[in-house]
Amino acid sequence: MKIAILGGDGFVGWPTTLHLSDLGHEVHIVDNLSRRWIDTELGVQSLTPMDSIQERCRIWHEVSGRRIQFHLIDLAKEYERLKVWLAEVKPDAIIHFAEQRAAPYSMKTDRHKVYTVNNNVSATHNVLAAMVETGIDAHLVHLGTMGVYGYSSVGAPIPEGYLDVEIDTPSGKKEQEILYPTKPGSVYHMTKSLDQILFQFYAQNDGLRITDLHQGIVWGTHTDQTRKHEQLVNRFDYDGDYGTVLNRFLIQAAIGYPLTVHGTGGQTRAFIHIRDSVRCIELALGDAPKAGERVRIFNQMTETHRVRDLAEMIAKMTGAKIANLPNPRKEAPENDLIVKNDQFLALGLDPTTLEEGLLDEVVEVARKYAYRIDRSRVPAVSGWTKDLGAKVERDPEGKALKSVS
Amino acid sequence: MKIAILGGDGFVGWPTTLHLSDLGHEVHIVDNLSRRWIDTELGVQSLTPMDSIQERCRIWHEVSGRRIQFHLIDLAKEYERLKVWLAEVKPDAIIHFAEQRAAPYSMKTDRHKVYTVNNNVSATHNVLAAMVETGIDAHLVHLGTMGVYGYSSVGAPIPEGYLDVEIDTPSGKKEQEILYPTKPGSVYHMTKSLDQILFQFYAQNDGLRITDLHQGIVWGTHTDQTRKHEQLVNRFDYDGDYGTVLNRFLIQAAIGYPLTVHGTGGQTRAFIHIRDSVRCIELALGDAPKAGERVRIFNQMTETHRVRDLAEMIAKMTGAKIANLPNPRKEAPENDLIVKNDQFLALGLDPTTLEEGLLDEVVEVARKYAYRIDRSRVPAVSGWTKDLGAKVERDPEGKALKSVS
Ligand SMILES: NC(=O)c1ccc[n+]([C@@H]2O[C@H](COP(=O)([O-])OP(=O)(O)OC[C@H]3O[C@@H](n4cnc5c(N)ncnc54)[C@H](O)[C@@H]3O)[C@@H](O)[C@H]2O)c1
Ligand SMILES: NC(=O)c1ccc[n+]([C@@H]2O[C@H](COP(=O)([O-])OP(=O)(O)OC[C@H]3O[C@@H](n4cnc5c(N)ncnc54)[C@H](O)[C@@H]3O)[C@@H](O)[C@H]2O)c1
Repeated sequence: MKIAILGGDGFVGWPTTLHLSDLGHEVHIVDNLSRRWIDTELGVQSLTPMDSIQERCRIWHEVSGRRIQFHLIDLAKEYERLKVWLAEVKPDAIIHFAEQRAAPYSMKTDRHKVYTVNNNVSATHNVLAAMVETGIDAHLVHLGTMGVYGYSSVGAPIPEGYLDVEIDTPSGKKEQEILYPTKPGSVYHMTKSLDQILFQFYAQNDGLRITDLHQGIVWGTHTDQTRKHEQLVNRFDYDGDYGTVLNRFLIQAAIGYPLTVHGTGGQTRAFIHIRDSVRCIELALGDAPKAGERVRIFNQMTETHRVRDLAEMIAKMTGAKIANLPNPRKEAPENDLIVKNDQFLALGLDPTTLEEGLLDEVVEVARKYAYRIDRSRVPAVSGWTKDLGAKVERDPEGKALKSVS
Repeated sequence: MKIAILGGDGFVGWPTTLHLSDLGHEVHIVDNLSRRWIDTELGVQSLTPMDSIQERCRIWHEVSGRRIQFHLIDLAKEYERLKVWLAEVKPDAIIHFAEQRAAPYSMKTDRHKVYTVNNNVSATHNVLAAMVETGIDAHLVHLGTMGVYGYSSVGAPIPEGYLDVEIDTPSGKKEQEILYPTKPGSVYHMTKSLDQILFQFYAQNDGLRITDLHQGIVWGTHTDQTRKHEQLVNRFDYDGDYGTVLNRFLIQAAIGYPLTVHGTGGQTRAFIHIRDSVRCIELALGDAPKAGERVRIFNQMTETHRVRDLAEMIAKMTGAKIANLPNPRKEAPENDLIVKNDQFLALGLDPTTLEEGLLDEVVEVARKYAYRIDRSRVPAVSGWTKDLGAKVERDPEGKALKSVS
């Protein structure tokens, strides 16, 4: 297959590129490298030393004999170039990762809100409009998030996209299937909720074939392909905007800081290892809807954990201490999270659990690259416990402090 | 009150401006005049001779002694200028008309789709982000459309925004109120469905006070204020993109063409006179939600009619003939439309009906300005009936032909 990977220089895009190239597909990356620019803006960098995309592609060719094409296009701003590129390459499938993906970043300032909405909505809509215009009948696979539903609402299991409702009509009640109602908690999550409406329209109106993968928090650094060469390593974010709670615990453990748990640590989140994420994408690719079918929505996660349980797992492996801090976020202190992921299990997914995979992260990533850690980016409890209380009071919505994301 | 009218140079915005100025409010228009540029692009013009916005404001001052401020800002592209302006003017209310509003225009080409999405989403989101950032606690009144629900679906009455649903949870079924699910039929309608998600988020997250008016097709040209001077006249669109079915019938009648009804003319649409539209906006302004309240959604319409009944009304008044043509649109040939508009009736709206108001439109507008009609923009049955059949075959979705909108 000829596969286009939009956002193929990113954290999930890069290992997906390698995985699909390894399987023998012809892979084309489109990326505007905005994520690297954001690193520059924030003055942070990946824990793992990350080469340029051009260099990564060169090394993959050396290692595997396979070529990956890289195209520098801003999908949100360069509609005409996107269209020309699409008509030339004519991919059979398009995997769309190319969005600003950090909730805390999307809420930093009004500029970041505006950027996130404009970037994400325009990128997605431009891809859809260009597909219709060029008549390319590719299967579009998009990465969404379960976060669109909000985490507390009514405690219902996170569905696979749809809800049956009853509507009163003059001739009695009628059943109708609707997109499961969303309740996004950040501008980032909101853009994913907008994406759903775009997908629904273009699937209905133009017969585009679309799969939307509602992904949990992706963890883990290596896949079978990134391991093949030091310079193929994936990015590892641990800053307050892009670093997930798990990555931040790993970094704290590696430099001997206590693991900072906000509130009771009772927030439950869904997780998936990067190896399983790329495998799910492969499975979804092979299972395309037909033209005229509704958008397929899958939950892409393998396990759920409370934040405090994650901290305990890492503490046990590393001997790190745990420090409880007040929660700066406006959220329920404890929430259950039941996620249906029947569709991927049915397709044959065999997950890597945190229990088995975490040690690798500790030894092969956090400790190995600990010398590169920028300590100013890692919350250290000792110095600022009191301060934090004050910060929380001044900033009840936690805009300044980022915790679980 | 100090009131900002975004899109105040447009068809509904201009009479709203005059109405609110007449009531003694301090009115500020923001507009980028894109609608005038689209006239230029399409090579069409308003039937009524329309002055520049600056000239209109000058004449209003002459006539009424009141000042209207005009600010040339592109809400979608000039976020920083919008913010500066908002912080300076500090309006108590903001009425947001500033979107590309024609469904046929939004579907013309991919460029028009991309423009409509980028313009409408960015304009709306920029306004919301700027309100939060400047801390202006204004009541935001937005103009939406009932068209977001699609017209055929299950034949349910068009609701006032919300639906109660039951959701299965581990502890039994729970009731939840959700935004009534949308089913937009064009890119334009889709943008209104995106707007709803933006409003819901900013009302919940930032306590913005928002009212969304789901408006029917606005008809009529004059209000009490536009009548005060020839040069205050409102615009009257009759081209294939912006002209509504009613305006097109009026023009056909004025130049002695038959009224062209597509299919059985059984499509039902909701209507409201421009006089009632401005009055509804006044009523909605006076009934602002409180911070933290959900978005208020009203249906802003006063009557529903089938297209063939409109044609018959106009034929009766003018002696015009009716010609039935095949329907180029992918839509149900007949649909009922039951619309709830209890909220406005409760607030004291006393509507102008088509039955009473149509004659004015025939005499004072269509016939009066008939000399300005560009006949090439008016479908004339004689010349192209056969052609139309062929066109419909080549273009089953009716992209080339625009009918009811
Ligand atoms: N990482 C996670 O835990 C996670 C969880 C759920 C969903 N997702 C979703 O998966 C997708 C990929 O996530 P990620 O972690 O790899 O993010 P990332 O930021 O590492 O990668 C996104 C890539 O897209 C590119 N990009 C952004 N805007 C672009 C534009 N306008 N034009 C061209 N390229 C553009 C960036 O430069 C970057 O390389 C995102 O859509 C994200 O929302 C990720
Ligand atoms: N006219 C109707 O029958 C009708 C029916 C239902 C809903 N509505 C809604 O009411 C609103 C007004 O409709 P209308 O008929 O007056 O449309 P219109 O096109 O006549 O007016 C819209 C105005 O907004 C301005 N505008 C557009 N984009 C802008 C931007 N980015 N920055 C600044 N100004 C911008 C245009 O220049 C124009 O003056 C629209 O949102 C429309 O969707 C209209």
